[in-house]
Amino acid sequence: MRRINRNTFKLRESPTRRIDIIKEKLSKERKDIYLLSTGQPSIPPPMEMRKYVAEILMEETMKYYGYTQSRGLPIIREAIAEDLMLLGGIELNPDENIVVTAGGQEGMFATLSVIIEGGDQVILTDPSYFGYKPLIDYFGGKITYIETSLKNGFQPNIEDLKEKVNSKTKALIIVSPDNPTGRILEPKIGKAICDLAVEYDFWILIDEAYKTIVYEGKHFWFWKYAPEHVIGINTFSKDPGFPGWRLGYVYANKDLIKAVKLVNEELVYCPPVISQWAASYYLKNRLREKFLPKVLEIYRSRRDTLCYALDRYLPESRYFRSQGSMFMFVDLSSYLCRLNIDSIRFTERLLEKKGVALIPGALFGNSFEGFVRFSFVTESEERIEAAVKYIANFVEELAN
Amino acid sequence: MRRINRNTFKLRESPTRRIDIIKEKLSKERKDIYLLSTGQPSIPPPMEMRKYVAEILMEETMKYYGYTQSRGLPIIREAIAEDLMLLGGIELNPDENIVVTAGGQEGMFATLSVIIEGGDQVILTDPSYFGYKPLIDYFGGKITYIETSLKNGFQPNIEDLKEKVNSKTKALIIVSPDNPTGRILEPKIGKAICDLAVEYDFWILIDEAYKTIVYEGKHFWFWKYAPEHVIGINTFSKDPGFPGWRLGYVYANKDLIKAVKLVNEELVYCPPVISQWAASYYLKNRLREKFLPKVLEIYRSRRDTLCYALDRYLPESRYFRSQGSMFMFVDLSSYLCRLNIDSIRFTERLLEKKGVALIPGALFGNSFEGFVRFSFVTESEERIEAAVKYIANFVEELAN
Repeated sequence: MRRINRNTFKLRESPTRRIDIIKEKLSKERKDIYLLSTGQPSIPPPMEMRKYVAEILMEETMKYYGYTQSRGLPIIREAIAEDLMLLGGIELNPDENIVVTAGGQEGMFATLSVIIEGGDQVILTDPSYFGYKPLIDYFGGKITYIETSLKNGFQPNIEDLKEKVNSKTKALIIVSPDNPTGRILEPKIGKAICDLAVEYDFWILIDEAYKTIVYEGKHFWFWKYAPEHVIGINTFSKDPGFPGWRLGYVYANKDLIKAVKLVNEELVYCPPVISQWAASYYLKNRLREKFLPKVLEIYRSRRDTLCYALDRYLPESRYFRSQGSMFMFVDLSSYLCRLNIDSIRFTERLLEKKGVALIPGALFGNSFEGFVRFSFVTESEERIEAAVKYIANFVEELAN
Repeated sequence: MRRINRNTFKLRESPTRRIDIIKEKLSKERKDIYLLSTGQPSIPPPMEMRKYVAEILMEETMKYYGYTQSRGLPIIREAIAEDLMLLGGIELNPDENIVVTAGGQEGMFATLSVIIEGGDQVILTDPSYFGYKPLIDYFGGKITYIETSLKNGFQPNIEDLKEKVNSKTKALIIVSPDNPTGRILEPKIGKAICDLAVEYDFWILIDEAYKTIVYEGKHFWFWKYAPEHVIGINTFSKDPGFPGWRLGYVYANKDLIKAVKLVNEELVYCPPVISQWAASYYLKNRLREKFLPKVLEIYRSRRDTLCYALDRYLPESRYFRSQGSMFMFVDLSSYLCRLNIDSIRFTERLLEKKGVALIPGALFGNSFEGFVRFSFVTESEERIEAAVKYIANFVEELAN
């Protein structure tokens, strides 16, 4: 009877795990690895915030060590509400519309557990961040993909969405700025989605992990147009950049938040207290204003170097210049077709032979077999250029 | 269609929430509250550990800010394995038998999600920590209670267990040292449970939150007798005492850990990195050896004061002198019967009138209506004595 619930195995290991295994092997052999695979910031959060944390740790009080309310300390919920007003002009009640979570992942898990019932339709864009599918499968939802394409800058095809929504549609999950494409949603597309959400009464789950990691353009705020239908999933992992501290939040209408809070309490009891104090300090003291522009300047230059290197060394590659997030989604099908190799085998062999880590496009959906995802935030400009050169060499070697 | 999954509401708000609301109201009115309700340590973790954390935060590296493996950093898994060898002489492979979680709560959630399938029988002792029931309900398990009694020092009745196990028994959840009773499991009872677990092939989930919070006696290590049937749920919340830092771990056989790790990854991606470094430092440098005896001395004196005050001011109360954990489970039925008031109403009115917070026995099971749980770790000896005096006054006032 010590059987394991088979539903568990719908939660497959992260598809990047095979790449991680090769990476670990190479790093044990002390081989140099070009990390173009990870969505992890490369710049630690601001020293001012870290100094604040170091100081409060010296105080003889349980305030910084004890449990907090399961929806988060009042100070962080207030700081989040002020921040969203500042960033997007959206108005939230910190006591009713916000629940603080142990990272965006836990926020997404709790939210999906609350809204999905067996057989519900959940709509994803194709391509889509690979983290959603296993969760939807786990909760018994049925995934429908809607089309995007490189030539339309990865904006979702609204006609396709109109054809696919129906009375079983429970939610549409969308990321903007996007992972893996770096696309920022156009306001007219965003508004059209809001209209459909209201008409068919489904949830828009907007993953706003990269909402401030913007190089060109502006984040689209769904909440302004359909507040009763929008659930914002947020994280402090990318800005200020301490993903390991596991802090995020969900905002939505009062009833939804009440339910997410219940699950949150059972999942983690409360979000990490020290992360809550750190993030409160970051927001309340507007540390972002000085810190983030410097970070974005570095990331933007790295993105530009990636574009330059792709144009120069892989001239047949096609891409949409990332407007935000940490990624570019690059079409290498011209090369891969000629070499008769799929993106999964290509990226694995590339990593083994050249030490360059990328994520294969096949992991993001159905229609992007010839693509790969580049992260441009981890490596320096020199190393990004070198990595692209290595990819070009590898393509050449495979051809011979 | 924006319906909320009804299963969510099996996760009722923590039953202490009503008490929390009264507490919050009183503290806004700046009324003094005697906190005998909470299982939270009152002594911050050792300064040496906190200084270490303050120092590493100054380093310009993502090492202390980035994601970790979802099963936890190798250093913390090694430290845990060494610690369990030291404490209990039990041997675990840090790469196969341990997964680090965002607290004991998340470890329990992940583990129950993995083992419970609809209709499985899950056995709890009566009384039992109130956190398990909602989780078992949520995952579709059926709860069966086994008997314990004050006169047997809250040792589970093995004859009762033998009658209740059957082919649908999936797991027995047990806490030792116990919440709410402070009972430490006797070896002969523990061994009898192991024999039954092997015979009927069910899991023993041993909640070891308080394994080192021991005043008299020794923790019973199930793993030694039935390693293939034991799942240890552990936390760093009580020792070293930073519950808000959300760190715990689960140990079990390789296959179970593989499944828990999958869920852990989807729930929280990884446990908080800074908590992992802090706890590694605590374990690797054996800070417990100096730190914990001082803490236990304080807690033990407070327990003794509680016993003294109960004997003196509430002479009809009956209790089992807590051997470990942070609690005593006290039979006030002699008073409550005479006053014709149930434990829930009694504790609520006591809090409102006298500012003394306790947890009613009714929340811990079926057979302990006249009991209340005292936590003796939060308040000073003077205040514990004063609180018991207030309870006695309150009982007298109710009688008049």
